[in-house]
Amino acid sequence: MFEFEIQAASGAARAGRLTLPHGTIETPVFMPVGTQGTVRALSPNDLRSVGATLVLANTYHLHVRPGEQVVEKLGALHRFMGWDRPLLTDSGGFQVFSLEGFRRVDDDGVEFQSHVDGGRRTLTPERATEIQWTLGADIAMAFDHVVPGGADEAIARDALERTMRWLERCRKRHKDLNASDDHQTLWPILQGGAHLQLRTEGLRRILELGDWTGLAIGGLSVGEPKAVMYDMLERLEPKLPALPRYLMGVGFPQDLVAAVERGVDLFDCVAPTRNGRNGSAFTPDGPVNIRNAEHRADPRPLDATCDCETCTTFSRGYLRHLFVAEELLGLRLLSLHNVRYLIRLAEAMRAAIRRNAFGPWAAEWRRRYLHTGSA
Amino acid sequence: MFEFEIQAASGAARAGRLTLPHGTIETPVFMPVGTQGTVRALSPNDLRSVGATLVLANTYHLHVRPGEQVVEKLGALHRFMGWDRPLLTDSGGFQVFSLEGFRRVDDDGVEFQSHVDGGRRTLTPERATEIQWTLGADIAMAFDHVVPGGADEAIARDALERTMRWLERCRKRHKDLNASDDHQTLWPILQGGAHLQLRTEGLRRILELGDWTGLAIGGLSVGEPKAVMYDMLERLEPKLPALPRYLMGVGFPQDLVAAVERGVDLFDCVAPTRNGRNGSAFTPDGPVNIRNAEHRADPRPLDATCDCETCTTFSRGYLRHLFVAEELLGLRLLSLHNVRYLIRLAEAMRAAIRRNAFGPWAAEWRRRYLHTGSA
Repeated sequence: MFEFEIQAASGAARAGRLTLPHGTIETPVFMPVGTQGTVRALSPNDLRSVGATLVLANTYHLHVRPGEQVVEKLGALHRFMGWDRPLLTDSGGFQVFSLEGFRRVDDDGVEFQSHVDGGRRTLTPERATEIQWTLGADIAMAFDHVVPGGADEAIARDALERTMRWLERCRKRHKDLNASDDHQTLWPILQGGAHLQLRTEGLRRILELGDWTGLAIGGLSVGEPKAVMYDMLERLEPKLPALPRYLMGVGFPQDLVAAVERGVDLFDCVAPTRNGRNGSAFTPDGPVNIRNAEHRADPRPLDATCDCETCTTFSRGYLRHLFVAEELLGLRLLSLHNVRYLIRLAEAMRAAIRRNAFGPWAAEWRRRYLHTGSA
Repeated sequence: MFEFEIQAASGAARAGRLTLPHGTIETPVFMPVGTQGTVRALSPNDLRSVGATLVLANTYHLHVRPGEQVVEKLGALHRFMGWDRPLLTDSGGFQVFSLEGFRRVDDDGVEFQSHVDGGRRTLTPERATEIQWTLGADIAMAFDHVVPGGADEAIARDALERTMRWLERCRKRHKDLNASDDHQTLWPILQGGAHLQLRTEGLRRILELGDWTGLAIGGLSVGEPKAVMYDMLERLEPKLPALPRYLMGVGFPQDLVAAVERGVDLFDCVAPTRNGRNGSAFTPDGPVNIRNAEHRADPRPLDATCDCETCTTFSRGYLRHLFVAEELLGLRLLSLHNVRYLIRLAEAMRAAIRRNAFGPWAAEWRRRYLHTGSA
């Protein structure tokens, strides 16, 4: 269980296979985000129909509502949300550090204010681990201290040290819980802001802590320039072990391509569903805003290359009508397409890696999507 | 084409089969309402999955947005909304008489204010017929003058006379348009408020105008007491010809049962989708409000007798979570179930009619749904 096999490589890009309790997934893989135990506007059948193999849910959100005890009574997270394929839960670290409201951090954990009822709650490494164990996803994430993209070295160092101490506590609690079976694995999160030295040191210390089945890179795509993220990934890549690498919170199509080129295997982002609800669709020729008047009587599909229900059933003119008329179906149809777009993008990247032609494929992809050949 | 065959009867209740250009439907039948060319929160695949055979769309709404010319450019209504089974369009009469804003009626037609842009527009019998012809539904409705439920006899008489004059004009225009093929039929709408004598006279005059393939009863379920509607149906029934009878804007489960018992064949209503979006679900034991705290950790399905995706996949606890967390999926899942509920109710009524046991079936159904045996 939790084995990762790299099946092909093309430069730093890799195509692999990760075995999890609820199924085997092929990487690179894009995870749709089901923040509150549902990928917004999409059903489990929708997700299966677009080829989703792994879905993310948020520990923070499910803890504050409906509460992990309710999810447990309803058969744990897979059964709760009607999703029988692999699941990953984020630890809540990112949420408690990024949501508005009161927050107090000490070495024990974080006291914060629930965005639902305003009540004070505390998450510690142990609690975050226990909640995720109760939810029962295939992959749990360690509880981490996230700092903003522009954090200086002192702040990033402080957060890194705390994240390292918390990681040991998460690991210990998870080992105790997981003693009798092998239902869930725990992945560490590498922090360190935009400071390569901190990231390198953090990586070394994570690996010294023992065997892991995967590794996440956190604290990128949190406000820093894109070039900083790309550069950091490029410099970290040679130092990373042969584990699955998960770049948290990324991303947009061009970010996926650039990150796979730099050796990343897993991604999650709310962009496809959030943008879809705003009427913005990914296409091979770049984003399309379906609300634009030019689509009014356009009989063409949103994306002629796409095999999703939206593109095989409806015209741009109809999709525009749904958005202009504020019909719920529009939110769903564009979310569905955007998720399918990123899953097909990952499929195309796997195929390019397998024929050891990732570089030329990426250049051609960029020429069309970004109207330029460079990252 | 447009043939109606009554296959079984039980008292006044009938089970029949109506042949339309886009398919054959079995009656009694419930039509989900796709006001703006989409049944709110549901896709065509959803509608097929719950057994919908006939869907209604609104001429008024599609005329003001996106405009029938746009729908025509996008391949007419069936293709526009991705629905290949039969469609019926309402004429716009009900909307121009019930929506807020400026309205001026004369014998030519109705000048009204668009709810979208506030602009003045005019619908006449000819225009309403032409728009519906352009939209291309299987069944078009005559343009009628609708009065409120409590209208006195003078007002109801005036509206009836106008509706009769308009019916002749609709019929003439539709015959001209339909001269070369047989793609669409036009049904008249019987008005007359709560005045039996006006209804009886209206019915006689409609039938004198010539052969029809179906007949609608309008102006009921518009604010009058339910007993008035039931009584009117009961008194009209012996006078109605062997055509399909469509009771417009009805209804709730108990109304469907009472109306089928009184010889009605077709129904439409926004109740299943509107109530679904409000968290109210039809069940054999009466309505359930899924927001109630009692459902918080309830692992049972919404309706244990139901075969829809909602009831076979999700717990009441999860559905409640979706509503409390304001997730879009909740709106869809309850809408889906409620439409399936009414379609299954129609199926159960057909079966009871075929075994000539509608009366006992209805008594038993009411005992459970209304917790009483009487209508």
